[in-house]
Amino acid sequence: MAEDLKNFFEPRGIAVIGASPKRGSVGYVIVDQLKKRYRRGRIYPVNPKYSEILGLKAYPTILDVPDPVDLAVVAVRADRVPSIVEQIGKRGVKAAIVISGGFSEIGPEGAERERKLLEIARRYGIRIIGPNCIGVLDNTTGIDTFFLPEDRLRRPPLGSISIISQSGAMLSMWVDWMAMKGLGLAKAVSYGNKVDVDDVELLRYLIDDPHTKVILMYIEALKPRRGKEFIEVARSATVKGKPVVVLKGGRSGAGARAAASHTGALASNYEVYRAAFKQAGIIEADTMEEMFDIAKAFTMTRPAEGRRLLILTNAGGEGVIATDFAERYGLEVPVLPEELQQRLRAKMPPHVVVKNPVDLTGDTDDERYRIVLEEVLPENIVDIVIVIAPPHPPAIRGDVINYVAEAHKKYQAPMLAVVTGGYIAEEYSRKFEAAGIPAYPSPERAIRVAAALAYYGEYVKKRGSAKY
Amino acid sequence: MAEDLKNFFEPRGIAVIGASPKRGSVGYVIVDQLKKRYRRGRIYPVNPKYSEILGLKAYPTILDVPDPVDLAVVAVRADRVPSIVEQIGKRGVKAAIVISGGFSEIGPEGAERERKLLEIARRYGIRIIGPNCIGVLDNTTGIDTFFLPEDRLRRPPLGSISIISQSGAMLSMWVDWMAMKGLGLAKAVSYGNKVDVDDVELLRYLIDDPHTKVILMYIEALKPRRGKEFIEVARSATVKGKPVVVLKGGRSGAGARAAASHTGALASNYEVYRAAFKQAGIIEADTMEEMFDIAKAFTMTRPAEGRRLLILTNAGGEGVIATDFAERYGLEVPVLPEELQQRLRAKMPPHVVVKNPVDLTGDTDDERYRIVLEEVLPENIVDIVIVIAPPHPPAIRGDVINYVAEAHKKYQAPMLAVVTGGYIAEEYSRKFEAAGIPAYPSPERAIRVAAALAYYGEYVKKRGSAKY
Repeated sequence: MAEDLKNFFEPRGIAVIGASPKRGSVGYVIVDQLKKRYRRGRIYPVNPKYSEILGLKAYPTILDVPDPVDLAVVAVRADRVPSIVEQIGKRGVKAAIVISGGFSEIGPEGAERERKLLEIARRYGIRIIGPNCIGVLDNTTGIDTFFLPEDRLRRPPLGSISIISQSGAMLSMWVDWMAMKGLGLAKAVSYGNKVDVDDVELLRYLIDDPHTKVILMYIEALKPRRGKEFIEVARSATVKGKPVVVLKGGRSGAGARAAASHTGALASNYEVYRAAFKQAGIIEADTMEEMFDIAKAFTMTRPAEGRRLLILTNAGGEGVIATDFAERYGLEVPVLPEELQQRLRAKMPPHVVVKNPVDLTGDTDDERYRIVLEEVLPENIVDIVIVIAPPHPPAIRGDVINYVAEAHKKYQAPMLAVVTGGYIAEEYSRKFEAAGIPAYPSPERAIRVAAALAYYGEYVKKRGSAKY
Repeated sequence: MAEDLKNFFEPRGIAVIGASPKRGSVGYVIVDQLKKRYRRGRIYPVNPKYSEILGLKAYPTILDVPDPVDLAVVAVRADRVPSIVEQIGKRGVKAAIVISGGFSEIGPEGAERERKLLEIARRYGIRIIGPNCIGVLDNTTGIDTFFLPEDRLRRPPLGSISIISQSGAMLSMWVDWMAMKGLGLAKAVSYGNKVDVDDVELLRYLIDDPHTKVILMYIEALKPRRGKEFIEVARSATVKGKPVVVLKGGRSGAGARAAASHTGALASNYEVYRAAFKQAGIIEADTMEEMFDIAKAFTMTRPAEGRRLLILTNAGGEGVIATDFAERYGLEVPVLPEELQQRLRAKMPPHVVVKNPVDLTGDTDDERYRIVLEEVLPENIVDIVIVIAPPHPPAIRGDVINYVAEAHKKYQAPMLAVVTGGYIAEEYSRKFEAAGIPAYPSPERAIRVAAALAYYGEYVKKRGSAKY
């Protein structure tokens, strides 16, 4: 089955049915993006009205397209889709991304058309992503059916986060957002009405994708009777060391009603989903912001061995808020042993608070951070380190970034940086991340990520994992 | 009492004791910033070692400073502070901001020094902000004792948000952050050890400040026995139409312990605080992000008359998530009356969902937004409008911003925009805000703000208000 899906991501040739020379149209943007990015094979625009599109030879039908061609992208009017899929079948192409809308989402007439589409696909053994979808953006192979030009929707750099989304619109916004934030994307897929290929199959495929380290999913509802397999597949992700982070739509009664209008999803049994997530070691994100905050951490740092935090700060208030949130999320901020406190006190001015949070105060230099990390971490008494290090204190030169990065390499505990402020803080965050330390603009956000690292670490410990 | 505090914000002359020509030092930055920004009177650097500092005549002691001088800023070593305050008293100056640290925060010796400082101040009738504080940043008069140069800490544009913070470090980071986000600041005060002037008095002062529309407070703990007055003062803010938004530090047991180390605050009775906030109509923010999200809304839009939302979106998934969060925060997303749905259906393509959320779908143009606003708002069936309008759909030209702004002027309901995505989304957000509509990057954040608008609107209705 995973072999089937390969055609969507690594085809040796692509036919674009409904290709168009009209700038800005769906059939234009898809050919244009593929021309810019796809290098594994040839692109065959299909449109009987043209002999050439965007400088590429165009073909009247897919039947006229030469070998090799493993994928058809379909962007024609809905009423023409069934006959087009019939041709795809006759041509022996085994994968189609159907972008076109006008199926079950518009009512009974569309639902009948969708049923017909599926029937033809089954008859010819064609796997379908869609219809009514934005399809696939694969940064590793250059497949890009997102049909918005880059000036309207930027593409992120190549990276190790992959996303499966039941909402195409949200997926495209997130992709645009990742591009701005410099978050690296491997693959992004939105499957629209999911007449055939669904979340579970895509999840299975991404687990085996060597480019993917973290998998994000937006789910309103799985297809009926897919729960058990979903849990099994998600569990196998954990065994392979690939965290799966889910944002669930339709958690409330009113939200489930909205989901039913949106995707026809029967999303009302949220408690069932939660139980499944827990069984499968899936990390549930509460908000879209949190989903990406967690994803970023997993691309840079490790799951935690336990729930004990060291909070190291130069701003007492941020230490207090971090501690409040730690307690809310079931994390501990243990007071450091008296003997260790004494050692730290001997190396610090008297107004530094060495309990935990360790408050280096506003007159700190970089060196105090180094001292605390070097004294505390070898003791193996904390599992996660939160380094609150805004660049504002006058004596801070920036070496704190290297000290944290060195400690992160040397010791087991995952580390998260908190850098609050304006432009200079954003610059510091970028430097932390360039040094391999995920950075967040507030203590609250970092603590939620710490909770995810602890949750996942616990699951991995219990279930066993190949990687961690 | 408010008259006393006036000297901190509108002095007719300022003495800076501990002024220094050493670039980057506290006594240098304060004089430099005042020189750049303060226009109401003269600045008198005080330092016996120099006859001139930063081009200004310097004086050996404050006793030598000519009239008028209403405020002394003290930035000298802790052990010299008591005698300096004695001189301030003899000179007849009635307000001092004591920046210097080395008081109760460092232990018994410092506590004794602090007691002495207060005793002298009382004897001469001097009001003190501090010690161990960053003091006052008043964008309306140019007072600026934040002692970090602007390349390290930017100052926000003039605006209507004022902040009182028990943490100086956090306040300075927030100020820097506001500058980056373009959020306008009126006054910011951090009072350090609050030996004299405290949160309650500052709150009272800001309520009468014509430049302040919203007051933010970071509180770990009030001074003992100030609870009742705090509630009374905060209530009077509501009567004057000035929302007070509080971020509380030390909400958990561990957080309260951290707060005790930070500010000596006895912050353990969070439930008592919560009850007080509720009595006083104070809006409690859960995170620092939320505090500013709420503040922004109150500078631009109105409190809500009730809890009924209209959610208008072009992204079904965002509508679903918004609805989930609405239910979590006790807001309603009522299905539109059948007759109104029919009217909308008659003006929209068949795949548009007109229930609520109204999902205009990815092929929407600006016009569909206008139609929905014009049909729904006159019906007076919703109290808050959430407009989810990312700029990605190809048919969107940007008129949606004007349509929302016009409806915001024409109808009573407050409106919030959600614009998710990258650079183009940020540009759209700025345009929404330029048109008077607060914009947020995710539906979750907008819904939390909507909940604050509803909570505050309910309180105002119950208690009565001069302004709304």
